[in-house]
Amino acid sequence: MMQTLSLIGIGTGNPDHLTVEAQKALATADLILIPRKGPDKADLADLRWQIVQAALGPSAPVVEFDLPRRDPDLPYLIAVDRWHDAIAAVWARTMAAAPQARRVALLIWGDPSLYDSSLRIAARLDPVPQLRVVPGITALQVLTAAHGIAINTLGGAFTVTTGRRLAQDGWPEGVESLAVMLDQGGAFQVLDGAAYDIWWGAYLGMQNQLLCAGRLGDVAADILAMRQSARAAHGWIMDIYLLRPALRAPVGAAE
Amino acid sequence: MMQTLSLIGIGTGNPDHLTVEAQKALATADLILIPRKGPDKADLADLRWQIVQAALGPSAPVVEFDLPRRDPDLPYLIAVDRWHDAIAAVWARTMAAAPQARRVALLIWGDPSLYDSSLRIAARLDPVPQLRVVPGITALQVLTAAHGIAINTLGGAFTVTTGRRLAQDGWPEGVESLAVMLDQGGAFQVLDGAAYDIWWGAYLGMQNQLLCAGRLGDVAADILAMRQSARAAHGWIMDIYLLRPALRAPVGAAE
Repeated sequence: MMQTLSLIGIGTGNPDHLTVEAQKALATADLILIPRKGPDKADLADLRWQIVQAALGPSAPVVEFDLPRRDPDLPYLIAVDRWHDAIAAVWARTMAAAPQARRVALLIWGDPSLYDSSLRIAARLDPVPQLRVVPGITALQVLTAAHGIAINTLGGAFTVTTGRRLAQDGWPEGVESLAVMLDQGGAFQVLDGAAYDIWWGAYLGMQNQLLCAGRLGDVAADILAMRQSARAAHGWIMDIYLLRPALRAPVGAAE
Repeated sequence: MMQTLSLIGIGTGNPDHLTVEAQKALATADLILIPRKGPDKADLADLRWQIVQAALGPSAPVVEFDLPRRDPDLPYLIAVDRWHDAIAAVWARTMAAAPQARRVALLIWGDPSLYDSSLRIAARLDPVPQLRVVPGITALQVLTAAHGIAINTLGGAFTVTTGRRLAQDGWPEGVESLAVMLDQGGAFQVLDGAAYDIWWGAYLGMQNQLLCAGRLGDVAADILAMRQSARAAHGWIMDIYLLRPALRAPVGAAE
């Protein structure tokens, strides 16, 4: 009997981000897989539990699994490839141990389609289960909502990239709005601070949300300092930002 | 006493797209502005009513307003500019007529940050009310969920653009994943059908959702035909798609 695997987007840490569709998918799951709480990001792991228990009560059909670790000594793409194999193997074992569970669910931060590997990992399962994806609110949406801005200019295009790519390649030619995710810290420093505006946010949607916006050169140091102290306080940080070429010249530059 | 204006993202037409945050924002609104049902897209206007009544019952504090029309004879950007002025004037009149309503809400298709002008229109109000944005599920997320795909390749960037831009400029250089929104119909025809894959969807999240995916050259005619007949049947259509350069050469081409 085929199992269905639901990848359920749960938003960025605010339980109110859950959609009705996500609540229904959780409520009808026979088995909910949650990675075991590690020393890092313990409050994030807790939040998955809170969301499940708020939806289903203490008898929620949760099974914890140990999330494999990525080998830091291998080249990045090879390390990711093996890591995904290892996660798929853990999912497969956990699902095989509960063959009566027809509807299996995983809670995915943000949205399963955006910088998340669950779909790629699920494709490695053998047999591939019937997949269902439930969209969730992304950090990008919470960022623009918190700043009260649109992600695109009127009728304009926008690009979403990673901190790694911005640091390597600089500003992508012809782009007028650039959102940066998965930044290990301050990739925007490759840019001319006078030429861009930034809208930054960390812990978006959570109680300890941080926001900062302004001419990049004016706020870059503040952002880096906030980032460092928040990371020290919480043990982890997730932040993203939107950049646009500055429309006005900095004060004094064009006289 | 300052009014608060909440722009509430409601997803793409499936009431289950609503988040808990959106439900709460609706439930606490003193006044909900809904554009009056016109002859076009009548089922979409109905859907706003259904969502409000499901959340609040028949006594929901709804006020309808007549949505101004964009002048089709003016150049595009001028027409949009005047249109936004006219909408802002209608919102201002409607809000001024209910000065006791402190929490005013507007229901926004998708997400207020993505190809939606409500934030720009709200900025024209005088005084500018206190704004609150509640993120909603976008058509882009429903598209990728329905096809079970990620929007980005592993660690890759992606670009979101409009049908108008794709038709004018062709494939943007260096882009490996391109999502196209607001297409008036078949902008993908500027591309070499053998060189791209497409994941297309219309009426995403709704009961009459349509999906199609494949090598662009193989499915473009099907998509255009489906689009035409669905538009004739419903009186309107909203569709979007994701494009990627094809990884494999078409059969027979590389022998």
